[in-house]
Order: sequence, then C-alpha cells, then structure tokens
Amino acid sequence: MLSKNDIKNIKSLEQKKFREEKRLFVAEGHKLVGDLLSKFDCVLLAATPDWKPLGSFRAERKEEITPDELKRASLLRSPQDVLAVFRIPDYSTDMATEAAKSLILALDDIQDPGNLGTIVRIADWFGIKDIFCSSGTADIYNPKAVQATMGALARVRVHYTDLLKDISHMPSGIPVYGTFLDGETIYSTTLSENGVIIMGNEGNGISREIAAKVNRRLFIPNWPAGAATSESLNVAVATAITCSEFRRRSF
Amino acid sequence: MLSKNDIKNIKSLEQKKFREEKRLFVAEGHKLVGDLLSKFDCVLLAATPDWKPLGSFRAERKEEITPDELKRASLLRSPQDVLAVFRIPDYSTDMATEAAKSLILALDDIQDPGNLGTIVRIADWFGIKDIFCSSGTADIYNPKAVQATMGALARVRVHYTDLLKDISHMPSGIPVYGTFLDGETIYSTTLSENGVIIMGNEGNGISREIAAKVNRRLFIPNWPAGAATSESLNVAVATAITCSEFRRRSF
Repeated sequence: MLSKNDIKNIKSLEQKKFREEKRLFVAEGHKLVGDLLSKFDCVLLAATPDWKPLGSFRAERKEEITPDELKRASLLRSPQDVLAVFRIPDYSTDMATEAAKSLILALDDIQDPGNLGTIVRIADWFGIKDIFCSSGTADIYNPKAVQATMGALARVRVHYTDLLKDISHMPSGIPVYGTFLDGETIYSTTLSENGVIIMGNEGNGISREIAAKVNRRLFIPNWPAGAATSESLNVAVATAITCSEFRRRSF
Repeated sequence: MLSKNDIKNIKSLEQKKFREEKRLFVAEGHKLVGDLLSKFDCVLLAATPDWKPLGSFRAERKEEITPDELKRASLLRSPQDVLAVFRIPDYSTDMATEAAKSLILALDDIQDPGNLGTIVRIADWFGIKDIFCSSGTADIYNPKAVQATMGALARVRVHYTDLLKDISHMPSGIPVYGTFLDGETIYSTTLSENGVIIMGNEGNGISREIAAKVNRRLFIPNWPAGAATSESLNVAVATAITCSEFRRRSF
C-alpha cells in the first residue's frame, strides 16, 4: 500500500528541483522498469497484482498496490502495471577519456525531453555508451525523457557538463563532428571510430562558440540536391542518420 | 477581430469529427503558416500586428488581432504570431500509380501525431511526394501533427486509404519494402528508385496481413552486431534511416 505521503513524494519527482534534491527519478511500465532494475538501485517498486515478477526483483521497498492506487501515484495519463523510484546514478568519467577510445554524443541545449529520450534510444541501438549534455539540455530524469528512452537508459550513460569547456579542452587529434548546412556530404566522407558527435538545439542548432571548436563539419544532404524542402531535420532524426552513417561503414 | 463564434469554430477543429465535417484544419506560427499559404486555400488568416506580411497573402478572410485574442483562439500552449484555418485538400491519385514511378511511404496505423508529422518532414527532406496512410493512422490534420510537419505538409501529399486492399492490388514488379528484425541488412542490399516503403505501428510494427504482402524485407542492424540493445527504433527514426539509405545511393 502507498500512503498519501508516498504519493506526494512520487509526484514531487515530476519537478527537477525535487529530483536533484533527493537524487531520485520515476519510471513506469513493465518493459522500462524491467530494463532499469538491471542497472539502477530501486528504492520503491510498486506494482499491481497483474505484474507477476514483483517478487523476483531487488528493491529497498516493494508494494503490491491496486490499479486505483497506481492511478493516483502515476505520472502518466494511462498508468501501466508498475511504477518504480530509482536512485540517480553518479558516473565518474570525462569526455576526453571516452572520446579517445570510442564514439560519443554531445548534446548542446536539446530542449525537448521526448527528443532527448529518443536520442538515448538511438545511441543504444548504435552502441554509443556515453552522452554528454550541456547544462542547458533537458533533464534525462524528467519522466517524459525516461519513458522515451524505452529502457535504453539502462545501457547508455548520460552526463551533464560544461560542454563548451570540455569541447575546448579536447586533446588535438580527437575528431569533433557536427552537422551543418555547409558541411561535407556525410555519405561520401571518411568517418572515424572514435570522437565526439555534437548535436545542436532544436531551433538554433549548435551554438556559435561550440561550433567554432568543430573540426569535422558534416552535412546530411536532402534529395534531390537543390530541391525546395524543409529547412532542417528534427534533431533526433539527424542524430539517427548520423549514427547510422558512422556504423554502416563497419558492415 | 474574432467573434466568440469564430473562436468556438477554431477550437472545434481540435476534434477530428469537426475537421471532417467542415473539411478544415488549423496551423499556427509564421514559418508553418507561411509555407502552407503557398499550397492550401486559406479561409481565415488572423495575425497580431507583429506579423507584417498579413497584407501580402491571399485568404478568404483576414483579421488583425490582439495577442490576447490570439491566446484565446490558439490551440497551442505558447501561441505564436499568426493562426490560420485552411481547407483540407482533395488529392486524386492512387498508390499503384505513384509507386510505379517513384518512391512512396505507406503508414500502417501510426498512432502518435508527433511521429506522423515528423515522418512527413522526413519524406519532404528525401524527396518523397506521397504518403499513403491506413485508416487507423493518426490524422495528419490533427493540430499536433500539422505543427510537427514544420511546413513540410505543403510539399508532401498525405492520403488515407484501405492500405491492405491497396497493397494487395499492387501490380507485380513494384517492390514493396518493410523493415523487420529478420530482413536483409539495409546497408548492403540493392534498393530501387520506385516502390512502396511500409512503416508499421509504434507498438506492434507492420500488421500480419500487410507484412505478408511485403516482397523486400529489410533490416536496420544494431551495432555491434549481436549486442544487447533496445528492442527497436522509434518509427520516425527507422523511417529516416530507411529513406536516407534509399537516397544515399544516388550521391
């Protein structure tokens, strides 16, 4: 059973302020919660009797609850069968270390939690283990972002950092990629197996200061070349095409 | 000025029932409205004095309105500078005709208006002029879908049809593509310049009956091959990678 206070505490985690204070976040639904239980410390696992595996998972506290209780606690419009509260992890690594050995993503002020979650799912598909976000990027522990990762958050580490500072201090020799309308056509250029791929804000793209640090400007061409078309692609879509291009070369 | 009745009529267009009855839809914001004015008949163009080009566009009715009036009429949480009501177009063509000469998309019960709008934007980028949707697909004239097209709706024709019937009657020799977990790796297979690419529902993929009509099964591989990863990609993301693969071969 969940007390009034439990429900109040769960609801408070919709707000970044309380997530940061308590270092906790919420996830819902058996697929997502199942994935996250394999990776994060769970402080509360609350499920309706429909969710059989409740007993088999480890959590600091487990509660069997009624669908009505779940409805009151849920942050979703259509509550599912299970709700869990997890501890926000601390990862200790830095961009230069990861970018020296593998491909990483850097997000410059991505605003939409849905886009952010979708980007984590794309990274997971393409074997990118680390995403470094500017402090102005949406919070990955926002419930909408967590849900949009569809569980990929269990396999991709998301970090927040001073992106301009980190990019500025990147050792020379590490490629720093970004997509621009005047870049090299991504389809026909060489791409490395390590480095940083920067994706920019939905409305404004990569900020001027960070763009100045990009040493490999790429371009996803529209088709047919020169036709009147949309001004740009959605940022998650551009991330997907870019990651696919980096990885397809090893097939 | 907008009357109470005007505002009631605009608000009613949030509902599919009224959009179908009146054959009208709403779009907001200068970029989107500007794009759509080049293509669709406009029955009402209402803008704040900030929006200078009001005079230069053709509409059955034009109104200069206050930001407060716009706020009352708007279907958005953050109203912009202009709101327009357009007539829903009638396109007369069919899948077999279009697929014989060029590449088209077919959507099998895409549920999310945001995904649908994003797919229209992707089609526009990659020069796909026609999208045929199953009758169970979200309505492209839903305000959220219209907004998500970012104006691409002016350049891509979206049709609703009995998708199973149309796919079943596709003349032999026209390739019908779909993405599946057991398909051929898209990166290394030959792809044609015409045909149908079917994208499936967010949760269930392509329906069994329609999948049976696919004659070219494709697969977007994850990387590295065989690694534990997300179950699938978001449908707009999969559409983007697929369209990019079809078009990159001519660069």
